[in-house]
Amino acid sequence: MADHGKAKRGIPPKSDFNAWYPAIVEIAELVDKRYPIKGMDVWRPYGWKAMRCIDSLTHSEMERTGHEEVRFPLLIPEDLLEKENRLVSLLKRARDEGVDPSELREQQEEAGFKKEVYWVRQAGETDLDVPMFLRPTSETAMYTLFPLWIRSHVDLPLKTYQIVNTFRYETKQTRSFIRVREIHFFEAHTAHVDEECATQQIHEDLEIVSRLMSNMSLPVIVSKRPVWDTFPGAWYTIAIDVIMPNGRTLQVASCHHYKDQWAKAFDIKYQNEAGETQYCHQTTYGMSERLLGAVVGIHGDDNGLIFPPPIAPIQVVIIPVAQHKSPSVSIAVESAAESLRNVGYRIKIDDRDLRPGQKYWDWEIKGVPLRLEIGPRDVENGNALAARRTGGKDPIPLDNLVDGVRNQLDIIHSELTKRSNNHANTCVNRLESLDQEIIDGQIYEVAFDGSDSDAEVLEKSTGLTILGDTMTEYSEPQPCIVSGKMTTRCQHLARMY
Amino acid sequence: MADHGKAKRGIPPKSDFNAWYPAIVEIAELVDKRYPIKGMDVWRPYGWKAMRCIDSLTHSEMERTGHEEVRFPLLIPEDLLEKENRLVSLLKRARDEGVDPSELREQQEEAGFKKEVYWVRQAGETDLDVPMFLRPTSETAMYTLFPLWIRSHVDLPLKTYQIVNTFRYETKQTRSFIRVREIHFFEAHTAHVDEECATQQIHEDLEIVSRLMSNMSLPVIVSKRPVWDTFPGAWYTIAIDVIMPNGRTLQVASCHHYKDQWAKAFDIKYQNEAGETQYCHQTTYGMSERLLGAVVGIHGDDNGLIFPPPIAPIQVVIIPVAQHKSPSVSIAVESAAESLRNVGYRIKIDDRDLRPGQKYWDWEIKGVPLRLEIGPRDVENGNALAARRTGGKDPIPLDNLVDGVRNQLDIIHSELTKRSNNHANTCVNRLESLDQEIIDGQIYEVAFDGSDSDAEVLEKSTGLTILGDTMTEYSEPQPCIVSGKMTTRCQHLARMY
Repeated sequence: MADHGKAKRGIPPKSDFNAWYPAIVEIAELVDKRYPIKGMDVWRPYGWKAMRCIDSLTHSEMERTGHEEVRFPLLIPEDLLEKENRLVSLLKRARDEGVDPSELREQQEEAGFKKEVYWVRQAGETDLDVPMFLRPTSETAMYTLFPLWIRSHVDLPLKTYQIVNTFRYETKQTRSFIRVREIHFFEAHTAHVDEECATQQIHEDLEIVSRLMSNMSLPVIVSKRPVWDTFPGAWYTIAIDVIMPNGRTLQVASCHHYKDQWAKAFDIKYQNEAGETQYCHQTTYGMSERLLGAVVGIHGDDNGLIFPPPIAPIQVVIIPVAQHKSPSVSIAVESAAESLRNVGYRIKIDDRDLRPGQKYWDWEIKGVPLRLEIGPRDVENGNALAARRTGGKDPIPLDNLVDGVRNQLDIIHSELTKRSNNHANTCVNRLESLDQEIIDGQIYEVAFDGSDSDAEVLEKSTGLTILGDTMTEYSEPQPCIVSGKMTTRCQHLARMY
Repeated sequence: MADHGKAKRGIPPKSDFNAWYPAIVEIAELVDKRYPIKGMDVWRPYGWKAMRCIDSLTHSEMERTGHEEVRFPLLIPEDLLEKENRLVSLLKRARDEGVDPSELREQQEEAGFKKEVYWVRQAGETDLDVPMFLRPTSETAMYTLFPLWIRSHVDLPLKTYQIVNTFRYETKQTRSFIRVREIHFFEAHTAHVDEECATQQIHEDLEIVSRLMSNMSLPVIVSKRPVWDTFPGAWYTIAIDVIMPNGRTLQVASCHHYKDQWAKAFDIKYQNEAGETQYCHQTTYGMSERLLGAVVGIHGDDNGLIFPPPIAPIQVVIIPVAQHKSPSVSIAVESAAESLRNVGYRIKIDDRDLRPGQKYWDWEIKGVPLRLEIGPRDVENGNALAARRTGGKDPIPLDNLVDGVRNQLDIIHSELTKRSNNHANTCVNRLESLDQEIIDGQIYEVAFDGSDSDAEVLEKSTGLTILGDTMTEYSEPQPCIVSGKMTTRCQHLARMY
């Protein structure tokens, strides 16, 4: 609908990332930000298709790993929160007082996120007996039913997930996909017989993350978050942060090991083989539309988006050239499209009455990874000209188009992965001492094993945030950057979104 | 998780439909009704998969007909309603006063559905400046952006749709899928250059409906609703009602022709080829999870559900028989599953350590259309035994399983369609006079062309509701059942859900 030719001239250079990002999401027609609620964008067809392609990868991973899809109600009655509040306040006090949670008596206190939820207190002209809120996430809703679904060890593991809209009353500046108030959200919730089985689930989650990130060629840092940044009610949290082009990190996914803490609050028990009643151990794994924000941010360039082939809404655009001069062009184009669609590729034929150059521009902006040009001479030679969005052109034979296209898409995918890895390698540096100059757009790896107050020193003196422990420690002990004591703990510091 | 053997004994006979329906949706594990909000069920994996199979047919139809999927925010600011209120009140007054809407001055009045929406007036601890409500449907949200997307005739037709959760504060008795407060909803919204093009869209919608209903073997009545039952703001409404087993009709879909009425309220205009500014003509087409309710209701029997093959979450369950006696059984089962999955069938292997009879029961309850039994003797004979959920068994050759299964599923689909047609033919009878006895569970076809007060007479004396005009008139004029004047208008009377 928009005039892309003109629009293109409106793309700021990507080097000015903070201007480029909000512009490109609208110019490429992913979203429309003119809906009259801050932080609630309209998904346009192209953006929604991209999100559905990402979801489709997620569905496949869930199916591969034996998770079942459920759908819980959006609204949660306030009184269900009481159990959660008790849990959170208990853990908070235990942490503050440095004691084991089981030593504390329960005490009700409001969970922090009540300050971030949307409230429904009225329906029609009726004041509701029990106020309800829009789910910020679904622990409370789900764990109300889990005790009804789990009775014996044969019901375990219970592996469920859903992809739903969640809500958060953001007071910070909103950004499409990155910080929004209605969030397109994935959440997996599992229950297991013991801590070890729940830990195995976290490992499976991290393997899934790794496969997804590799499909999307996203450069990530995986960290065990510090205690103060652990999800409320979790034993530990492992977060996945994408290194955005400006060097800030964007948390796109997180996995939480709950041990039996939520199970105790929600009374989620089972009978083991010996007939004894035990509490379940639980995990959750969340991701959101931030994945799309990361894809947009990481791969795009001055000319527009670049979609990694596995999630491109259109993987190949076929452009007939000078088709009026030769009817064989239309035939070749249709036949090419059909053979590619038959093996499952997402194909678009652009036969609009426009100059080819104009069409090339349009699809560059939209980040279609591969463009096939087919003109009279190409048909004669039995070739199509394949132009990669990442640069470079090759003729590929029309009579073996499927293999040719697969090969071209592989080249593009590898190129995007290479660029991402380079970016990560360039961004991440070692911080040796607190006197070292902190460079804007850099992420630092640091030997750190200090107390909470040491952490405060580290964050204040660098102006950065501790992401947490990396998944691998130093092979040789290093001096902690604050306390100087020897440690193998390796952590990252970054500016976070 | 549940013990299906025991559960089966809990299925009431289907002849007691009002007991059977609410029982079977839980016994077959489609939903869990124990979530603590009335009318908001939890979708269990099997039920959600069934719904996603129906959605998948809808997505295919939308793609085939060139509709694009969008996703609008759930929350709608109250002030956007003003335009809609003006429209609705204008049309209502025009209707009441029997004049053309254009003769009336605008006057603000609250739209009726404000009494049925959930209100969000507070977020965190903040009172919102503008109250918002959860979408009951998305006209207001979408038509706020349409003027920004439509400028010229080349932007038309605009054909969009979304599949989302919508909300309605139901005060009537709730029923799973049939009358709920959070509704899994499909809505297509289109804009066209003129009334005729919008009318063509309605025809396309009805063709889509017809294809979907045929896939689901649902017996339907298509009616142009009476004026008083037309969607607010619509020129006319065509509704699709399924004839449920108890003879009550369930509206599962509706199409609305808006003419340029909403376009005038929301200022949705375009420039035609002559450069003149014109209002768009619009349509909507809605369907909901009631489709699943209808499938459950129509096809199930005393033993459980029966899913029509195109939307069955599991199309074929394969049961190894006496596999411990022969390793060739497991090999044959795996190979059968693989060949069927490769062509896209949804397959489940049930290799639980249970008696075959117990397994048969379980899958009968869940309505899997086809069961394949493979035992040592079957492998020797090169056959699988195919047992149809609709009755009857046939051996099919293992070396041509795909064709054999396709054939069996076709037989099942035809059988379900035949049953539905029989049901419709049995239920619908001619009402010749107001003295005729009204039989419970019957639907009546009637020649009727009376005034609003005649309609009231007709509805009161029969205790039924007028569904509206059928799509075909009588070939010969008949006396109107109330006024006696000759008419070709053919309408239906029914008890509606």
